[in-house]
Amino acid sequence: MNEGYKPLLAITMGDAAGSGPEIVTKTLADPEINLVSRPVVIGDAAIMRAALKITGAPAEVKIIRDLAEASFQKGSIEVIDLHNIQFNRLVRGRVAPIAGKASFEYVKLAIELALAGECDGIVTSAINKEAWDRAGYHYNGHTQLLAELCGVSEVAMMLVTGKLRVSHVTTHVSLSQVIKLIRQERILTVLKLTDEAVREMGIEKPHIAVAGLNPHAGESGLFGDEEANHIMPAIETAQRLGMSVTGPVPPDSVFLRASEGQFDASVAMYHDQGHIAVKMLGITEGVNLTLGLPIVRTSVDHGTVFGKAGKGTADPGSLIQAIKLASVMCINRRRLRP
Amino acid sequence: MNEGYKPLLAITMGDAAGSGPEIVTKTLADPEINLVSRPVVIGDAAIMRAALKITGAPAEVKIIRDLAEASFQKGSIEVIDLHNIQFNRLVRGRVAPIAGKASFEYVKLAIELALAGECDGIVTSAINKEAWDRAGYHYNGHTQLLAELCGVSEVAMMLVTGKLRVSHVTTHVSLSQVIKLIRQERILTVLKLTDEAVREMGIEKPHIAVAGLNPHAGESGLFGDEEANHIMPAIETAQRLGMSVTGPVPPDSVFLRASEGQFDASVAMYHDQGHIAVKMLGITEGVNLTLGLPIVRTSVDHGTVFGKAGKGTADPGSLIQAIKLASVMCINRRRLRP
Repeated sequence: MNEGYKPLLAITMGDAAGSGPEIVTKTLADPEINLVSRPVVIGDAAIMRAALKITGAPAEVKIIRDLAEASFQKGSIEVIDLHNIQFNRLVRGRVAPIAGKASFEYVKLAIELALAGECDGIVTSAINKEAWDRAGYHYNGHTQLLAELCGVSEVAMMLVTGKLRVSHVTTHVSLSQVIKLIRQERILTVLKLTDEAVREMGIEKPHIAVAGLNPHAGESGLFGDEEANHIMPAIETAQRLGMSVTGPVPPDSVFLRASEGQFDASVAMYHDQGHIAVKMLGITEGVNLTLGLPIVRTSVDHGTVFGKAGKGTADPGSLIQAIKLASVMCINRRRLRP
Repeated sequence: MNEGYKPLLAITMGDAAGSGPEIVTKTLADPEINLVSRPVVIGDAAIMRAALKITGAPAEVKIIRDLAEASFQKGSIEVIDLHNIQFNRLVRGRVAPIAGKASFEYVKLAIELALAGECDGIVTSAINKEAWDRAGYHYNGHTQLLAELCGVSEVAMMLVTGKLRVSHVTTHVSLSQVIKLIRQERILTVLKLTDEAVREMGIEKPHIAVAGLNPHAGESGLFGDEEANHIMPAIETAQRLGMSVTGPVPPDSVFLRASEGQFDASVAMYHDQGHIAVKMLGITEGVNLTLGLPIVRTSVDHGTVFGKAGKGTADPGSLIQAIKLASVMCINRRRLRP
């Protein structure tokens, strides 16, 4: 057991033109964060100082050269300063290639530090895909970069909000692609990743519910055969492997039941199944995480909040929860994968 | 204007083996119901009397031969008694052909009365599809029977819960069928029906949001072209016809925004888009209604609640709201379609 261990987490600053830097200052000034983790920001010190002025969070920015130099003193936000933003050229609330390039570099360094074992995990603030694109980095988001640098191909997105933990068999593809992609092997992979992740969240024997693809989970084949042909075989294999798995459950009841605590996690077949369910809860403290990586990675579940940039009004709830969840998972991973 | 007009509503008793009769007694004993409507039950008097004994609702069952005989006195639940259940052969909580046959006959008569102009609208309790089937009535539910008896082909299901009013372009079909069915003409039809229904709910110029089909509403064609090829043309036509329509909106935000009051109604492309959104609100007072009929028809949005049959514990919230909504729509329809 590692009770009392405080994981060292690399927190990326996110897109400098958005609310990310302000959110980071509010989050790291929260005493609870320092009780559960040792956070270091990967970002730009000048931007972080400007963000501090805006939010008035009770802290000071301290530049460190590497993680080994961090001292985690109360009231100081330690930043590995990539010094990659020309402050006078930045317009808040606008897509900027310079901010895209910078935010890409923060994520890349954070991943490298985690892979090298210099930190326990990483927590990412929001980036802007168009800014990455215009800076010459053509990725569909964090996940693709994470998979590439970590050398893995099978990853899955999970959203966590309240008691609801939803992993996704498919994400950013059309619905007609979904029908071709939800195959037994992929569903089984996502089940395994979900089981493993929920154990790392501290639940010893997770009970996982799998959503059907079709209305009423196909109503015994009346509305589609994907449940019988692809989903059920994956569930049966998972059960044979010793996992506690239920389903396929009608999509319009499984997530409500999970949010009430009837299941420890649920598996969505496609993006909007899971995302509609999570967002309808109306909670601003959701966390997005990537399963299947050799490192722990959690993220805010919102965008750059360009509209509030410079106003100090963006809500840090999601980043706070993302750090807390990463901390729990890092601690349990040390125990479960010694 | 018809202020003060109380619509005459035919309330079907539902499946006698379920909680429908008990729910009806609780509902009709609610003084508010009699302030907004003149309800008459189409059902079986013996079953209704037994249900009254179970729930202890402060009312008496009074048999009437036809609607003209109804006197709507306080404390009496007036029933057109089809006398079609052999009480001693009924087992509560079990599918029974006899209850299926009976509940089918209630709905059929209610529709006929409404079509003949003898009542203003109908409100249906839950039936059991398997019981209909075993009684020899092979319908996929109320809607198919309604469409058949009313002689219409283009109907749409709408769910109403709180501020959320969601109509559906498709419902009980597989997701692979959905992709073939969401065509400009059908979407436009559902938009027109939605606009008309929401006006009948008392909103003069409804603002309607249309969900995309794909994640992020296709993200400019990156994940599917249905938004550009089918949904956008329908929206543009509706706008040219003078409707206030927005979209396609990303499916994972449109229903939350609608539930917060940003839109008066929203249009879902498929069953689970709308149903996941509505059910995640966790409200037990949802109403299901059928758009496109010559008569007003609302319904409870739950099943027969077999598990609570005989216990008197089933929640009447959905039926109460269904009657209130039917009443408002009947009043406004008299004004809007004089």
